[in-house]
Amino acid sequence: MNQPTLFTAPPLQSLHHQALSIIPLGGLGEVGMNMMVYEYENDLILVDAGLMFPDQEMLGIDIVIPDFSYLKENASKIKGIVITHGHEDHIGALPFLLSEINPPIYATPLTIGLISAKLKEKNLNNILLNPVKPRETITLGVFKIEFIRVTHSIVDGVALGITTPVGRIIHTGDFKIDQTPVDGERTDIQKLGEYGDLGTLALLSDSTNAERPGYTLSEKVVGRAFDEIFCQSKGRIIVATFSSNIHRVQQAVDSAVLSNRKIFLSGKSMIRNIQIAAELGYLKIPTDILVKLETINDYPDDQIILLTTGSQGEPLSSLFRMAIDTHKQIKIKEGDTVLLSSRAIPGNERAIGRIINHLFRRGAEVVYERISEIHVSGHASQEELKVMINLVRPRFFIPIHGEYRQLIHHAKIAESLEIKKEHIILMEDGDVVELAANRWVKEKKVPSGRIFVDGKGVGNVADFVLRDRKHIGQDGIIVLIIGIDKSTGEIASEPEIISKGFVSEEEAYGLFSELNVLVLKLLSELNPEVKSEWIVIEGMVKKTLGKYIYKQMERRPMIIPIILEM
Amino acid sequence: MNQPTLFTAPPLQSLHHQALSIIPLGGLGEVGMNMMVYEYENDLILVDAGLMFPDQEMLGIDIVIPDFSYLKENASKIKGIVITHGHEDHIGALPFLLSEINPPIYATPLTIGLISAKLKEKNLNNILLNPVKPRETITLGVFKIEFIRVTHSIVDGVALGITTPVGRIIHTGDFKIDQTPVDGERTDIQKLGEYGDLGTLALLSDSTNAERPGYTLSEKVVGRAFDEIFCQSKGRIIVATFSSNIHRVQQAVDSAVLSNRKIFLSGKSMIRNIQIAAELGYLKIPTDILVKLETINDYPDDQIILLTTGSQGEPLSSLFRMAIDTHKQIKIKEGDTVLLSSRAIPGNERAIGRIINHLFRRGAEVVYERISEIHVSGHASQEELKVMINLVRPRFFIPIHGEYRQLIHHAKIAESLEIKKEHIILMEDGDVVELAANRWVKEKKVPSGRIFVDGKGVGNVADFVLRDRKHIGQDGIIVLIIGIDKSTGEIASEPEIISKGFVSEEEAYGLFSELNVLVLKLLSELNPEVKSEWIVIEGMVKKTLGKYIYKQMERRPMIIPIILEM
Repeated sequence: MNQPTLFTAPPLQSLHHQALSIIPLGGLGEVGMNMMVYEYENDLILVDAGLMFPDQEMLGIDIVIPDFSYLKENASKIKGIVITHGHEDHIGALPFLLSEINPPIYATPLTIGLISAKLKEKNLNNILLNPVKPRETITLGVFKIEFIRVTHSIVDGVALGITTPVGRIIHTGDFKIDQTPVDGERTDIQKLGEYGDLGTLALLSDSTNAERPGYTLSEKVVGRAFDEIFCQSKGRIIVATFSSNIHRVQQAVDSAVLSNRKIFLSGKSMIRNIQIAAELGYLKIPTDILVKLETINDYPDDQIILLTTGSQGEPLSSLFRMAIDTHKQIKIKEGDTVLLSSRAIPGNERAIGRIINHLFRRGAEVVYERISEIHVSGHASQEELKVMINLVRPRFFIPIHGEYRQLIHHAKIAESLEIKKEHIILMEDGDVVELAANRWVKEKKVPSGRIFVDGKGVGNVADFVLRDRKHIGQDGIIVLIIGIDKSTGEIASEPEIISKGFVSEEEAYGLFSELNVLVLKLLSELNPEVKSEWIVIEGMVKKTLGKYIYKQMERRPMIIPIILEM
Repeated sequence: MNQPTLFTAPPLQSLHHQALSIIPLGGLGEVGMNMMVYEYENDLILVDAGLMFPDQEMLGIDIVIPDFSYLKENASKIKGIVITHGHEDHIGALPFLLSEINPPIYATPLTIGLISAKLKEKNLNNILLNPVKPRETITLGVFKIEFIRVTHSIVDGVALGITTPVGRIIHTGDFKIDQTPVDGERTDIQKLGEYGDLGTLALLSDSTNAERPGYTLSEKVVGRAFDEIFCQSKGRIIVATFSSNIHRVQQAVDSAVLSNRKIFLSGKSMIRNIQIAAELGYLKIPTDILVKLETINDYPDDQIILLTTGSQGEPLSSLFRMAIDTHKQIKIKEGDTVLLSSRAIPGNERAIGRIINHLFRRGAEVVYERISEIHVSGHASQEELKVMINLVRPRFFIPIHGEYRQLIHHAKIAESLEIKKEHIILMEDGDVVELAANRWVKEKKVPSGRIFVDGKGVGNVADFVLRDRKHIGQDGIIVLIIGIDKSTGEIASEPEIISKGFVSEEEAYGLFSELNVLVLKLLSELNPEVKSEWIVIEGMVKKTLGKYIYKQMERRPMIIPIILEM
């Protein structure tokens, strides 16, 4: 494989001592499961511990988390876990991590609130959760970590200013530079510039939107769209969004006040997250505006805003149940307006499209990203990424958070500014970069990868199990049982054949008797020596039937012959 | 289900006689498998016969075609099949249809060329293929059909002006109104306006882009982007696009001439379609510019343009093989520029993303829709749809080609113009609308639906087979064989358990012995009467094991108990 010379490590000697190790365990090579190690001699801190949602190839997998065996091996060094914000791709691996190691956690108050609720659900107590406010600094071993406010699609997000023995680091977390954030808490540009003035060794910056030119629109844009729609519509309004997007919820609340409507909630995570945010003061809801869902039918349509989950087309979500008439309280009717206030996560487009069709069929007006400005991204676009680089003016630049293509676009952006080519470091999960004041070198990789969580099983779904799932999921399975007389080695009964996911019963009937004949013929022609070699017989049966079925039908079901002694 | 009153049928009496029946058999309710019936007393014509590519829910399905049993029942009435253009979603069902019925086919020369190649592949001879040019008129029974040039992402596309006993119909096919088409063959606005002047009963118009505001960009935009990239790059250029997009290929050829490069081809369909188009004169390639792929390594990098398939991330495509180093002639290297000149079909985003990552990792520059103007749509956006409606000024309007949400957006566009609400007819597959000069009525539906093609099997993959595939594809399968002594009814041997797609062997070991104990216990506690009821026993085994496994692992594999007499 040709590595572009542009971004490869210079042939320096190992730096080992007096060097900072930077080790991404997740999030560099995929969108999600962010997890970054900073290590200096005997001190190690972890930034973020996220999960990733499975793609359509990962059949039956519930969630994916990073392989953190490196952390288990170095548990004694870990001084703390610092979390930048409360999204699942930054906190979702915590329950798995914390059931194996037990360092204290540091994050802003809302992030702590969300983590705390998550740990309670999993019965993980005794974890030290330390709230830290922006512009506060904590000390973890040799590291001093300053929290720096950034705007994002969840409130209370921060970047980290990490002072290490070899120099200052800025780790942005997820961010955008929203000049008019809903809560007025702007990205702390001044503080970031201060790091630039003081001299910063490395910037690790969010690459999610590195392919998008221009600036990301302000969250306020969505508020204005809400105002317009809420005031003009004479029917009920149903807003589906991510429950963690507290800004979005706040704007729906504000527009509800403006349009004299009440707020109703549907969806477990929506109710929980709003409760946490309201308790911590991040969400301001006038007391009389939040009404119990059970009473929704007592209100006229033009006084109703229903906030719900399901904006990704999830088949068990509240919105999906409404769309197919199986929701307990809500039946979609003509005059309803449904807002899908979110972006389709790649892979969910068809599911979302189906929901939209169902809603239109029931007479609702449906408003979604493609046709209206009811969603903006939470991530910085190219011009904002340039602002970040120019504020911090780092010696070294490492793009983080993204697939390879996003990382490489971000690297090119840095190259277009004042960052030297040889100071741009392209890393992927498991890479180890040792950084000294003036040099860097790539070391041998540490164990890393994706751990699949399926039900209660963590990491026990092997690749071959997934391959089998894919195979039988595509073409079905045929099980064929052959009884053989223990004493004589002769066939004791006709082969028994069953299949699943292959063909219908009528069709199976004819085919299976043909297969039967084939197998009996095959077995009768075997010489006695082969007959005792069951594995050989199984292989021959598999091959013969497989060929026959492919010729007949151009399908390749999995074939499992079982030879039973009788 | 609440139907919006806006678009439902007025309560008229059945029109039956002296009415035109319009019956969509596909394409109204999905994107793809377009197929429309026009019927008047004993004459029936079919417009288009397309396929649809399966979505990720349709496990193992190769393609989807419309249920055309209505055509088989009315075979004697069919006077001909008229095809608007040569895309798969308009011609792909022809081989299936033509192996059951045998009417003549009418289309423009390139479309005939593409159909002819397709039928030859399937050994379908004896089909009458009649080339028709734009502005020519054919007569099929009571129908007179005029071919009207439209622009689209394939050359030689037409709309149809159909004169019927009840009035004129315009059926647009797929179209955009490109003012600067590559071949100079503009949408025949004058002819469409003529139909408007003469008075047209109904317009059936393409809804694919009804959600997109503004105008669709001209194909010429892509040519300018090609010129720029081809001339500036010093390395090889690899262009992946749909092989049927002959305009796109022509522009690549033109830019190759401009930049002093040669054209190399990779991918079976790319070679075949270019050959057909060149033979028929739709593609103009200077004789010396097309060079055999085998000699590619004899040319310097800056003289190479490679046209290839695989723009949708298809795992067997030429581009994919290049991206993972398994292509025979081409190995991606630093300096290469790869253009993905196409839009991601929904559902393919992740596969395309993976290819892009692989290409970047090998050092290529990758240019794709998100970051450059190297693709434009072939379908009319909202302003063009308005132009079409205003040209034709039909009495009745029927949106075609699209999911429900696209149809309803198109209906709203018509409503915003001069079309009366009650003259906008929202149809879905299988609906029958009877149209007279001044009225319309919806009749009882005809059989319609999606037929799954899996290998050689057409329509034999039942819903329950797909459900089974999904189930075992998600959580795997467990087969458990219990031998029972024929004479005594007692268990003859320990249960044999095998599983696929469930857990790894190590994990299975412990679990399976637990399941064994469970089953033996269950069987030993049965009273003798139940023991002879095998179906009952199978049900009990299934339930007991299912519950146990879910409790242990939170997974739900399919469990198949088999009781064997011994």
